Amino acid sequence: MNEFLWPVRVYYEDTDSGGVVYYANYLKFMERARTEWLRALGFEQDELIREEGVIFAVRSVQLDYLLPARFNDQLNVSSQVIKAGKASLTLEQIISRQPDNAVLCKGIVKIASLDAASFRVTTLPEALLKKTKQGE
Amino acid sequence: MNEFLWPVRVYYEDTDSGGVVYYANYLKFMERARTEWLRALGFEQDELIREEGVIFAVRSVQLDYLLPARFNDQLNVSSQVIKAGKASLTLEQIISRQPDNAVLCKGIVKIASLDAASFRVTTLPEALLKKTKQGE
Amino acid sequence: MNEFLWPVRVYYEDTDSGGVVYYANYLKFMERARTEWLRALGFEQDELIREEGVIFAVRSVQLDYLLPARFNDQLNVSSQVIKAGKASLTLEQIISRQPDNAVLCKGIVKIASLDAASFRVTTLPEALLKKTKQGE
Amino acid sequence: MNEFLWPVRVYYEDTDSGGVVYYANYLKFMERARTEWLRALGFEQDELIREEGVIFAVRSVQLDYLLPARFNDQLNVSSQVIKAGKASLTLEQIISRQPDNAVLCKGIVKIASLDAASFRVTTLPEALLKKTKQGE
Repeated sequence: MNEFLWPVRVYYEDTDSGGVVYYANYLKFMERARTEWLRALGFEQDELIREEGVIFAVRSVQLDYLLPARFNDQLNVSSQVIKAGKASLTLEQIISRQPDNAVLCKGIVKIASLDAASFRVTTLPEALLKKTKQGE
Repeated sequence: MNEFLWPVRVYYEDTDSGGVVYYANYLKFMERARTEWLRALGFEQDELIREEGVIFAVRSVQLDYLLPARFNDQLNVSSQVIKAGKASLTLEQIISRQPDNAVLCKGIVKIASLDAASFRVTTLPEALLKKTKQGE
Repeated sequence: MNEFLWPVRVYYEDTDSGGVVYYANYLKFMERARTEWLRALGFEQDELIREEGVIFAVRSVQLDYLLPARFNDQLNVSSQVIKAGKASLTLEQIISRQPDNAVLCKGIVKIASLDAASFRVTTLPEALLKKTKQGE
Repeated sequence: MNEFLWPVRVYYEDTDSGGVVYYANYLKFMERARTEWLRALGFEQDELIREEGVIFAVRSVQLDYLLPARFNDQLNVSSQVIKAGKASLTLEQIISRQPDNAVLCKGIVKIASLDAASFRVTTLPEALLKKTKQGE
Protein backbone atom coordinates (compact mmCIF):
# COMPACT_ATOMS: atom_id res chain seq x y z
CA MET A 1 0.00 0.00 0.00
CA ASN A 2 1.14 3.49 -0.77
CA GLU A 3 2.39 5.62 2.04
CA PHE A 4 0.00 8.23 3.43
CA LEU A 5 1.49 11.52 4.68
CA TRP A 6 -0.07 13.82 7.27
CA PRO A 7 1.44 17.19 8.27
CA VAL A 8 1.74 18.13 11.96
CA ARG A 9 2.93 21.43 13.41
CA VAL A 10 4.62 21.40 16.83
CA TYR A 11 2.96 23.75 19.35
CA TYR A 12 3.91 24.61 22.93
CA GLU A 13 1.50 21.95 24.22
CA ASP A 14 3.70 19.27 22.61
CA THR A 15 7.01 20.34 24.13
CA ASP A 16 8.53 19.94 27.58
CA SER A 17 11.03 21.88 29.65
CA GLY A 18 13.87 19.91 28.03
CA GLY A 19 13.12 22.13 25.01
CA VAL A 20 11.92 19.28 22.79
CA VAL A 21 8.71 17.37 22.07
CA TYR A 22 7.72 15.20 25.06
CA TYR A 23 8.28 11.54 24.19
CA ALA A 24 4.66 10.43 24.62
CA ASN A 25 3.39 13.08 22.21
CA TYR A 26 4.85 11.40 19.12
CA LEU A 27 2.15 8.77 19.72
CA LYS A 28 -0.46 11.53 19.45
CA PHE A 29 0.98 12.63 16.12
CA MET A 30 0.91 9.01 14.88
CA GLU A 31 -2.68 8.54 15.98
CA ARG A 32 -3.75 11.73 14.19
CA ALA A 33 -2.05 10.43 11.05
CA ARG A 34 -3.80 7.04 11.31
CA THR A 35 -7.16 8.77 11.80
CA GLU A 36 -6.57 10.84 8.66
CA TRP A 37 -5.33 7.80 6.73
CA LEU A 38 -8.58 5.99 7.58
CA ARG A 39 -10.57 9.08 6.64
CA ALA A 40 -8.74 9.27 3.29
CA LEU A 41 -9.74 5.63 2.68
CA GLY A 42 -13.36 6.55 3.42
CA PHE A 43 -13.64 5.36 7.03
CA GLU A 44 -14.79 7.60 9.88
CA GLN A 45 -14.09 5.94 13.22
CA ASP A 46 -17.21 7.31 14.90
CA GLU A 47 -19.33 5.82 12.09
CA LEU A 48 -17.50 2.49 12.38
CA ILE A 49 -18.45 2.33 16.05
CA ARG A 50 -22.09 3.32 15.49
CA GLU A 51 -22.74 1.43 12.27
CA GLU A 52 -20.47 -1.60 12.44
CA GLY A 53 -19.84 -1.85 16.19
CA VAL A 54 -16.10 -1.87 15.60
CA ILE A 55 -13.45 0.09 17.52
CA PHE A 56 -9.69 -0.03 17.03
CA ALA A 57 -7.29 -0.58 19.90
CA VAL A 58 -3.52 -0.37 19.84
CA ARG A 59 -1.94 -3.68 20.90
CA SER A 60 1.71 -2.73 20.78
CA VAL A 61 4.08 0.03 19.76
CA GLN A 62 7.80 0.19 19.15
CA LEU A 63 9.30 3.64 18.91
CA ASP A 64 12.83 4.71 18.08
CA TYR A 65 13.62 8.30 18.91
CA LEU A 66 16.39 9.44 16.56
CA LEU A 67 16.33 13.24 16.71
CA PRO A 68 14.18 15.58 18.79
CA ALA A 69 11.40 17.74 17.34
CA ARG A 70 11.18 21.29 18.65
CA PHE A 71 8.61 24.07 19.01
CA ASN A 72 7.39 25.33 15.63
CA ASP A 73 8.83 22.40 13.68
CA GLN A 74 6.74 21.33 10.71
CA LEU A 75 6.57 17.54 10.61
CA ASN A 76 5.26 14.87 8.28
CA VAL A 77 3.87 11.65 9.68
CA SER A 78 3.69 8.67 7.34
CA SER A 79 1.40 5.66 7.71
CA GLN A 80 1.92 2.44 5.79
CA VAL A 81 0.38 -0.96 6.42
CA ILE A 82 3.18 -3.51 6.60
CA LYS A 83 1.06 -6.47 7.71
CA ALA A 84 -2.68 -7.11 7.48
CA GLY A 85 -4.35 -9.91 9.41
CA LYS A 86 -8.04 -10.78 9.72
CA ALA A 87 -8.43 -8.81 12.92
CA SER A 88 -5.30 -6.66 13.07
CA LEU A 89 -3.16 -4.29 11.06
CA THR A 90 0.48 -3.43 11.62
CA LEU A 91 1.62 -0.02 10.41
CA GLU A 92 4.98 1.59 10.04
CA GLN A 93 4.85 5.28 10.90
CA ILE A 94 7.76 7.64 10.35
CA ILE A 95 7.91 11.20 11.62
CA SER A 96 10.17 13.46 9.58
CA ARG A 97 10.97 17.15 9.87
CA GLN A 98 10.32 19.53 7.01
CA PRO A 99 11.82 20.83 4.84
CA ASP A 100 15.04 18.86 5.45
CA ASN A 101 13.22 15.52 5.72
CA ALA A 102 15.33 14.40 8.69
CA VAL A 103 13.82 11.30 10.30
CA LEU A 104 13.02 12.07 13.94
CA CYS A 105 11.02 9.07 15.11
CA LYS A 106 10.14 5.65 13.70
CA GLY A 107 7.25 3.60 14.95
CA ILE A 108 5.69 0.18 14.42
CA VAL A 109 2.10 0.18 15.63
CA LYS A 110 -0.12 -2.90 15.81
CA ILE A 111 -3.84 -2.26 15.86
CA ALA A 112 -6.59 -4.74 16.64
CA SER A 113 -10.22 -4.62 15.63
CA LEU A 114 -12.50 -4.94 18.67
CA ASP A 115 -16.21 -5.29 19.18
CA ALA A 116 -17.15 -1.86 20.53
CA ALA A 117 -19.45 -3.32 23.20
CA SER A 118 -17.50 -6.32 24.51
CA PHE A 119 -13.94 -5.13 23.64
CA ARG A 120 -13.36 -8.66 22.23
CA VAL A 121 -11.33 -9.19 19.06
CA THR A 122 -13.42 -9.18 15.90
CA THR A 123 -12.63 -9.25 12.18
CA LEU A 124 -11.72 -5.99 10.53
CA PRO A 125 -14.50 -4.39 8.46
CA GLU A 126 -14.52 -6.16 5.06
CA ALA A 127 -14.35 -2.90 3.13
CA LEU A 128 -11.27 -1.76 5.05
CA LEU A 129 -9.40 -5.04 4.47
CA LYS A 130 -10.23 -4.73 0.76
CA LYS A 131 -8.94 -1.17 0.53
CA THR A 132 -5.82 -2.13 2.43
CA LYS A 133 -5.12 -4.89 -0.07
CA GLN A 134 -5.91 -2.77 -3.14
CA GLY A 135 -3.17 -0.47 -2.10
CA GLU A 136 -0.49 -3.17 -2.04
CA MET B 1 -17.10 24.42 53.90
CA ASN B 2 -13.59 23.57 54.91
CA GLU B 3 -10.88 23.74 52.32
CA PHE B 4 -9.65 20.43 50.87
CA LEU B 5 -5.96 20.17 49.89
CA TRP B 6 -4.50 17.80 47.30
CA PRO B 7 -0.75 17.51 46.58
CA VAL B 8 0.50 17.48 42.97
CA ARG B 9 4.05 16.96 41.77
CA VAL B 10 5.12 18.61 38.49
CA TYR B 11 6.56 16.13 35.96
CA TYR B 12 8.06 16.69 32.50
CA GLU B 13 4.66 15.95 30.92
CA ASP B 14 3.29 19.10 32.57
CA THR B 15 5.94 21.53 31.35
CA ASP B 16 6.59 23.20 28.01
CA SER B 17 9.66 24.52 26.22
CA GLY B 18 9.21 27.88 27.98
CA GLY B 19 10.52 26.00 31.03
CA VAL B 20 7.29 26.24 33.01
CA VAL B 21 4.01 24.37 33.40
CA TYR B 22 1.87 24.69 30.25
CA TYR B 23 -1.09 26.94 30.99
CA ALA B 24 -3.80 24.36 30.23
CA ASN B 25 -2.30 21.85 32.67
CA TYR B 26 -3.29 23.80 35.78
CA LEU B 27 -6.85 22.79 34.85
CA LYS B 28 -5.75 19.14 35.03
CA PHE B 29 -4.36 19.71 38.51
CA MET B 30 -7.62 21.36 39.59
CA GLU B 31 -9.70 18.52 38.18
CA ARG B 32 -7.58 15.94 40.04
CA ALA B 33 -8.14 17.92 43.23
CA ARG B 34 -11.91 18.07 42.67
CA THR B 35 -12.00 14.32 42.02
CA GLU B 36 -10.16 13.67 45.28
CA TRP B 37 -12.35 16.15 47.16
CA LEU B 38 -15.43 14.26 45.98
CA ARG B 39 -13.78 10.96 46.92
CA ALA B 40 -13.00 12.31 50.38
CA LEU B 41 -16.70 13.21 50.75
CA GLY B 42 -17.60 9.65 49.77
CA PHE B 43 -18.48 10.13 46.09
CA GLU B 44 -16.88 8.16 43.27
CA GLN B 45 -17.72 9.75 39.92
CA ASP B 46 -17.91 6.43 38.06
CA GLU B 47 -20.46 5.20 40.62
CA LEU B 48 -22.44 8.46 40.34
CA ILE B 49 -22.75 7.86 36.58
CA ARG B 50 -23.71 4.18 36.91
CA GLU B 51 -25.92 4.39 39.99
CA GLU B 52 -27.42 7.88 39.85
CA GLY B 53 -27.06 8.70 36.16
CA VAL B 54 -25.30 11.94 37.04
CA ILE B 55 -22.17 13.36 35.42
CA PHE B 56 -20.48 16.68 36.21
CA ALA B 57 -19.56 19.16 33.51
CA VAL B 58 -17.55 22.33 33.87
CA ARG B 59 -19.58 25.37 32.78
CA SER B 60 -17.00 28.10 33.22
CA VAL B 61 -13.52 28.75 34.55
CA GLN B 62 -11.62 31.89 35.45
CA LEU B 63 -7.91 31.49 35.96
CA ASP B 64 -5.32 33.99 37.11
CA TYR B 65 -1.73 32.96 36.50
CA LEU B 66 0.41 34.68 39.11
CA LEU B 67 3.70 32.79 39.14
CA PRO B 68 4.86 29.85 37.02
CA ALA B 69 5.28 26.32 38.34
CA ARG B 70 8.36 24.45 37.16
CA PHE B 71 9.56 20.86 36.75
CA ASN B 72 9.80 19.01 40.08
CA ASP B 73 7.80 21.63 42.00
CA GLN B 74 5.63 20.21 44.75
CA LEU B 75 2.22 21.91 44.66
CA ASN B 76 -0.92 21.97 46.76
CA VAL B 77 -4.30 22.40 45.10
CA SER B 78 -7.14 23.60 47.28
CA SER B 79 -10.85 23.11 46.60
CA GLN B 80 -13.54 25.04 48.38
CA VAL B 81 -17.21 25.41 47.50
CA ILE B 82 -18.06 29.11 47.41
CA LYS B 83 -21.57 28.77 46.00
CA ALA B 84 -23.97 25.82 45.94
CA GLY B 85 -27.09 25.83 43.75
CA LYS B 86 -29.61 23.05 43.12
CA ALA B 87 -27.82 21.91 39.99
CA SER B 88 -24.44 23.57 40.18
CA LEU B 89 -21.48 24.19 42.45
CA THR B 90 -18.91 26.95 42.22
CA LEU B 91 -15.49 26.22 43.66
CA GLU B 92 -12.48 28.34 44.36
CA GLN B 93 -9.26 26.46 43.69
CA ILE B 94 -5.84 27.79 44.55
CA ILE B 95 -2.57 26.23 43.47
CA SER B 96 0.33 27.00 45.77
CA ARG B 97 3.97 25.91 45.72
CA GLN B 98 5.50 24.03 48.63
CA PRO B 99 7.16 24.61 50.96
CA ASP B 100 7.10 28.43 50.52
CA ASN B 101 3.31 28.46 49.95
CA ALA B 102 3.60 31.00 47.09
CA VAL B 103 0.29 31.27 45.25
CA LEU B 104 0.86 30.36 41.59
CA CYS B 105 -2.64 30.13 40.13
CA LYS B 106 -6.14 31.00 41.31
CA GLY B 107 -9.25 29.54 39.74
CA ILE B 108 -13.00 29.83 39.99
CA VAL B 109 -14.68 26.76 38.50
CA LYS B 110 -18.42 26.35 38.02
CA ILE B 111 -19.66 22.79 37.71
CA ALA B 112 -23.10 21.66 36.61
CA SER B 113 -24.84 18.40 37.34
CA LEU B 114 -25.99 16.71 34.12
CA ASP B 115 -28.07 13.68 33.31
CA ALA B 116 -25.42 11.25 32.04
CA ALA B 117 -27.60 10.06 29.15
CA SER B 118 -29.15 13.29 27.87
CA PHE B 119 -26.48 15.76 29.06
CA ARG B 120 -29.36 17.96 30.34
CA VAL B 121 -29.09 19.83 33.62
CA THR B 122 -30.35 17.85 36.61
CA THR B 123 -30.32 18.42 40.36
CA LEU B 124 -27.16 17.54 42.25
CA PRO B 125 -27.26 14.25 44.16
CA GLU B 126 -29.10 14.95 47.45
CA ALA B 127 -26.32 13.41 49.55
CA LEU B 128 -23.69 15.61 47.93
CA LEU B 129 -25.68 18.82 48.50
CA LYS B 130 -26.11 17.79 52.12
CA LYS B 131 -22.40 17.16 52.64
CA THR B 132 -21.58 20.43 50.93
CA LYS B 133 -23.85 22.29 53.34
CA GLN B 134 -22.65 20.42 56.43
CA GLY B 135 -19.20 21.74 55.74
CA GLU B 136 -20.22 25.40 55.77
CA MET C 1 -8.61 44.05 14.05
CA ASN C 2 -10.12 41.47 11.79
CA GLU C 3 -10.88 38.09 13.22
CA PHE C 4 -8.42 35.30 12.42
CA LEU C 5 -9.80 31.76 12.01
CA TRP C 6 -7.87 28.54 12.54
CA PRO C 7 -9.33 25.08 11.88
CA VAL C 8 -8.87 22.29 14.45
CA ARG C 9 -9.93 18.66 14.13
CA VAL C 10 -10.83 16.75 17.32
CA TYR C 11 -8.81 13.52 17.76
CA TYR C 12 -9.02 10.81 20.43
CA GLU C 13 -6.21 12.53 22.37
CA ASP C 14 -8.53 15.50 22.97
CA THR C 15 -11.49 13.57 24.37
CA ASP C 16 -12.18 11.97 27.73
CA SER C 17 -14.28 9.07 28.93
CA GLY C 18 -17.28 11.40 29.27
CA GLY C 19 -17.35 11.20 25.46
CA VAL C 20 -16.49 14.87 24.91
CA VAL C 21 -13.39 17.08 24.64
CA TYR C 22 -11.64 17.36 28.03
CA TYR C 23 -12.14 20.86 29.40
CA ALA C 24 -8.44 21.81 29.55
CA ASN C 25 -7.91 20.95 25.88
CA TYR C 26 -9.89 23.92 24.57
CA LEU C 27 -6.98 25.99 25.89
CA LYS C 28 -4.66 23.99 23.63
CA PHE C 29 -6.87 24.75 20.64
CA MET C 30 -6.84 28.46 21.54
CA GLU C 31 -3.08 28.51 21.91
CA ARG C 32 -2.62 26.84 18.51
CA ALA C 33 -4.88 29.52 17.02
CA ARG C 34 -2.91 32.34 18.67
CA THR C 35 0.36 30.84 17.39
CA GLU C 36 -1.04 30.73 13.85
CA TRP C 37 -2.46 34.25 14.18
CA LEU C 38 1.00 35.54 15.14
CA ARG C 39 2.53 33.57 12.27
CA ALA C 40 0.01 35.09 9.85
CA LEU C 41 1.07 38.54 11.09
CA GLY C 42 4.70 37.61 10.41
CA PHE C 43 5.85 36.68 13.93
CA GLU C 44 7.45 33.35 14.79
CA GLN C 45 7.60 32.91 18.56
CA ASP C 46 10.93 31.05 18.52
CA GLU C 47 12.45 33.95 16.58
CA LEU C 48 10.94 36.48 18.99
CA ILE C 49 12.69 34.71 21.86
CA ARG C 50 16.04 34.43 20.06
CA GLU C 51 16.09 37.79 18.31
CA GLU C 52 14.10 40.10 20.57
CA GLY C 53 14.34 38.28 23.90
CA VAL C 54 10.55 38.35 24.24
CA ILE C 55 8.29 35.50 25.33
CA PHE C 56 4.53 35.62 25.82
CA ALA C 57 2.85 34.40 28.98
CA VAL C 58 -0.85 33.99 29.64
CA ARG C 59 -1.95 36.10 32.62
CA SER C 60 -5.59 35.14 32.83
CA VAL C 61 -8.28 33.20 31.02
CA GLN C 62 -12.05 33.16 31.27
CA LEU C 63 -13.79 30.28 29.54
CA ASP C 64 -17.47 29.59 29.06
CA TYR C 65 -18.30 26.07 27.99
CA LEU C 66 -21.57 26.19 26.08
CA LEU C 67 -21.73 22.92 24.15
CA PRO C 68 -19.33 19.99 24.11
CA ALA C 69 -17.08 19.12 21.17
CA ARG C 70 -16.80 15.44 20.29
CA PHE C 71 -14.41 13.07 18.53
CA ASN C 72 -14.02 13.89 14.83
CA ASP C 73 -15.67 17.31 15.12
CA GLN C 74 -14.23 19.92 12.82
CA LEU C 75 -13.84 23.20 14.73
CA ASN C 76 -12.91 26.77 13.96
CA VAL C 77 -11.03 28.83 16.54
CA SER C 78 -11.18 32.60 16.18
CA SER C 79 -8.69 35.09 17.59
CA GLN C 80 -9.39 38.78 17.86
CA VAL C 81 -7.55 41.42 19.86
CA ILE C 82 -10.08 43.29 21.99
CA LYS C 83 -7.58 45.33 24.02
CA ALA C 84 -3.95 46.24 23.36
CA GLY C 85 -1.72 47.68 26.06
CA LYS C 86 2.00 48.49 25.97
CA ALA C 87 2.94 45.14 27.46
CA SER C 88 -0.20 43.04 27.11
CA LEU C 89 -2.89 41.98 24.67
CA THR C 90 -6.35 40.72 25.45
CA LEU C 91 -7.94 38.42 22.89
CA GLU C 92 -11.40 37.04 22.46
CA GLN C 93 -11.32 33.48 21.15
CA ILE C 94 -14.42 31.60 20.08
CA ILE C 95 -14.51 27.90 19.24
CA SER C 96 -17.31 26.95 16.86
CA ARG C 97 -18.27 23.63 15.30
CA GLN C 98 -18.39 23.20 11.53
CA PRO C 99 -20.41 23.18 9.41
CA ASP C 100 -23.30 24.29 11.66
CA ASN C 101 -21.25 27.08 13.27
CA ALA C 102 -22.59 26.30 16.76
CA VAL C 103 -20.57 28.15 19.40
CA LEU C 104 -19.04 25.59 21.78
CA CYS C 105 -16.64 27.62 23.90
CA LYS C 106 -15.89 31.32 24.40
CA GLY C 107 -12.66 32.57 25.88
CA ILE C 108 -11.04 35.82 26.94
CA VAL C 109 -7.27 35.42 27.15
CA LYS C 110 -4.88 38.06 28.45
CA ILE C 111 -1.29 37.75 27.33
CA ALA C 112 1.71 39.60 28.70
CA SER C 113 5.03 40.26 27.02
CA LEU C 114 7.93 39.07 29.17
CA ASP C 115 11.68 39.35 28.98
CA ALA C 116 12.68 35.79 28.05
CA ALA C 117 15.60 35.74 30.49
CA SER C 118 14.16 37.43 33.59
CA PHE C 119 10.44 36.67 33.01
CA ARG C 120 9.78 40.35 33.88
CA VAL C 121 7.15 42.35 32.03
CA THR C 122 8.50 44.18 28.99
CA THR C 123 6.91 46.19 26.17
CA LEU C 124 5.43 44.25 23.26
CA PRO C 125 7.59 44.19 20.11
CA GLU C 126 6.98 47.51 18.29
CA ALA C 127 6.19 45.78 15.01
CA LEU C 128 3.54 43.60 16.63
CA LEU C 129 1.80 46.55 18.32
CA LYS C 130 1.78 48.32 14.96
CA LYS C 131 0.24 45.37 13.15
CA THR C 132 -2.32 44.96 15.90
CA LYS C 133 -3.37 48.58 15.48
CA GLN C 134 -3.40 48.50 11.68
CA GLY C 135 -6.01 45.84 11.88
CA GLU C 136 -8.44 47.90 13.97
CA MET D 1 18.16 -4.28 41.15
CA ASN D 2 15.07 -4.31 43.24
CA GLU D 3 11.85 -3.24 41.64
CA PHE D 4 10.55 0.24 42.49
CA LEU D 5 6.77 0.75 42.64
CA TRP D 6 4.94 4.05 42.10
CA PRO D 7 1.16 4.44 42.49
CA VAL D 8 -0.84 6.31 39.84
CA ARG D 9 -4.54 7.17 39.91
CA VAL D 10 -6.41 7.47 36.59
CA TYR D 11 -8.20 10.83 36.16
CA TYR D 12 -10.44 12.11 33.37
CA GLU D 13 -7.44 13.79 31.73
CA ASP D 14 -5.93 10.33 31.10
CA THR D 15 -8.94 8.77 29.38
CA ASP D 16 -10.41 9.12 25.90
CA SER D 17 -13.87 8.75 24.41
CA GLY D 18 -13.27 5.02 23.94
CA GLY D 19 -13.77 4.90 27.73
CA VAL D 20 -10.20 3.83 28.50
CA VAL D 21 -6.81 5.41 29.12
CA TYR D 22 -5.43 6.96 25.89
CA TYR D 23 -2.52 4.86 24.65
CA ALA D 24 0.11 7.62 24.83
CA ASN D 25 -0.66 8.33 28.47
CA TYR D 26 0.85 5.08 29.76
CA LEU D 27 4.18 6.66 28.77
CA LYS D 28 3.40 9.56 31.11
CA PHE D 29 2.76 7.13 33.95
CA MET D 30 6.06 5.37 33.22
CA GLU D 31 7.96 8.65 33.14
CA ARG D 32 6.47 9.70 36.50
CA ALA D 33 7.59 6.36 37.94
CA ARG D 34 11.13 6.77 36.56
CA THR D 35 11.31 10.28 38.02
CA GLU D 36 10.27 8.95 41.44
CA TRP D 37 12.66 6.00 41.16
CA LEU D 38 15.53 8.44 40.53
CA ARG D 39 14.34 10.60 43.42
CA ALA D 40 14.25 7.55 45.71
CA LEU D 41 17.86 6.84 44.70
CA GLY D 42 18.76 10.43 45.62
CA PHE D 43 18.79 12.05 42.16
CA GLU D 44 16.75 15.10 41.28
CA GLN D 45 16.73 15.63 37.53
CA ASP D 46 16.74 19.43 37.73
CA GLU D 47 19.86 19.25 39.93
CA LEU D 48 21.50 16.78 37.51
CA ILE D 49 21.02 19.32 34.70
CA ARG D 50 22.27 22.30 36.74
CA GLU D 51 25.09 20.60 38.65
CA GLU D 52 26.29 17.83 36.36
CA GLY D 53 25.09 19.10 32.98
CA VAL D 54 23.34 15.79 32.34
CA ILE D 55 19.86 15.28 30.93
CA PHE D 56 18.15 11.96 30.17
CA ALA D 57 16.51 11.25 26.84
CA VAL D 58 14.42 8.26 25.87
CA ARG D 59 15.97 6.41 22.90
CA SER D 60 13.36 3.70 22.37
CA VAL D 61 10.23 2.23 23.88
CA GLN D 62 8.38 -1.02 23.34
CA LEU D 63 4.89 -1.20 24.79
CA ASP D 64 2.46 -4.08 24.95
CA TYR D 65 -1.09 -3.12 25.80
CA LEU D 66 -2.72 -6.10 27.46
CA LEU D 67 -5.81 -4.73 29.23
CA PRO D 68 -7.18 -1.20 29.32
CA ALA D 69 -7.08 1.04 32.38
CA ARG D 70 -10.22 3.04 33.09
CA PHE D 71 -11.25 6.20 34.93
CA ASN D 72 -10.64 5.97 38.69
CA ASP D 73 -8.44 2.87 38.42
CA GLN D 74 -5.63 2.74 40.94
CA LEU D 75 -2.45 1.56 39.22
CA ASN D 76 1.06 0.59 40.22
CA VAL D 77 3.96 1.33 37.90
CA SER D 78 7.14 -0.66 38.41
CA SER D 79 10.63 0.35 37.31
CA GLN D 80 13.51 -2.06 37.13
CA VAL D 81 16.87 -1.66 35.42
CA ILE D 82 17.43 -4.67 33.18
CA LYS D 83 20.57 -3.41 31.44
CA ALA D 84 23.07 -0.73 32.44
CA GLY D 85 25.62 0.62 29.97
CA LYS D 86 28.12 3.45 30.39
CA ALA D 87 25.78 5.99 28.86
CA SER D 88 22.41 4.26 28.85
CA LEU D 89 19.99 2.35 31.02
CA THR D 90 17.27 -0.02 29.91
CA LEU D 91 14.29 -0.39 32.23
CA GLU D 92 11.38 -2.74 32.32
CA GLN D 93 8.22 -0.99 33.48
CA ILE D 94 5.00 -2.82 34.22
CA ILE D 95 1.68 -1.13 34.89
CA SER D 96 -0.70 -3.18 36.99
CA ARG D 97 -4.17 -2.47 38.33
CA GLN D 98 -4.90 -2.55 42.03
CA PRO D 99 -6.06 -4.40 44.01
CA ASP D 100 -6.34 -7.35 41.59
CA ASN D 101 -2.78 -6.85 40.27
CA ALA D 102 -3.86 -7.48 36.66
CA VAL D 103 -1.05 -6.50 34.27
CA LEU D 104 -2.34 -3.81 31.90
CA CYS D 105 0.75 -2.62 30.07
CA LYS D 106 4.37 -3.76 29.79
CA GLY D 107 7.14 -1.50 28.63
CA ILE D 108 10.83 -1.64 27.84
CA VAL D 109 12.34 1.86 27.91
CA LYS D 110 15.91 2.70 26.90
CA ILE D 111 17.29 5.94 28.30
CA ALA D 112 20.47 7.71 27.25
CA SER D 113 22.53 10.18 29.22
CA LEU D 114 23.07 13.39 27.25
CA ASP D 115 25.11 16.49 27.76
CA ALA D 116 22.44 19.07 28.61
CA ALA D 117 24.02 21.75 26.42
CA SER D 118 25.02 19.82 23.30
CA PHE D 119 22.52 16.94 23.52
CA ARG D 120 25.45 14.59 22.76
CA VAL D 121 25.78 11.22 24.49
CA THR D 122 27.77 11.37 27.70
CA THR D 123 28.52 8.87 30.48
CA LEU D 124 25.91 8.40 33.18
CA PRO D 125 26.67 10.16 36.48
CA GLU D 126 29.10 7.92 38.39
CA ALA D 127 26.96 7.92 41.52
CA LEU D 128 23.90 6.76 39.59
CA LEU D 129 25.75 3.89 37.91
CA LYS D 130 27.03 2.85 41.32
CA LYS D 131 23.56 2.88 42.90
CA THR D 132 22.17 0.98 39.93
CA LYS D 133 24.80 -1.74 40.41
CA GLN D 134 24.42 -1.89 44.20
CA GLY D 135 20.85 -2.85 43.67
CA GLU D 136 21.64 -5.88 41.52
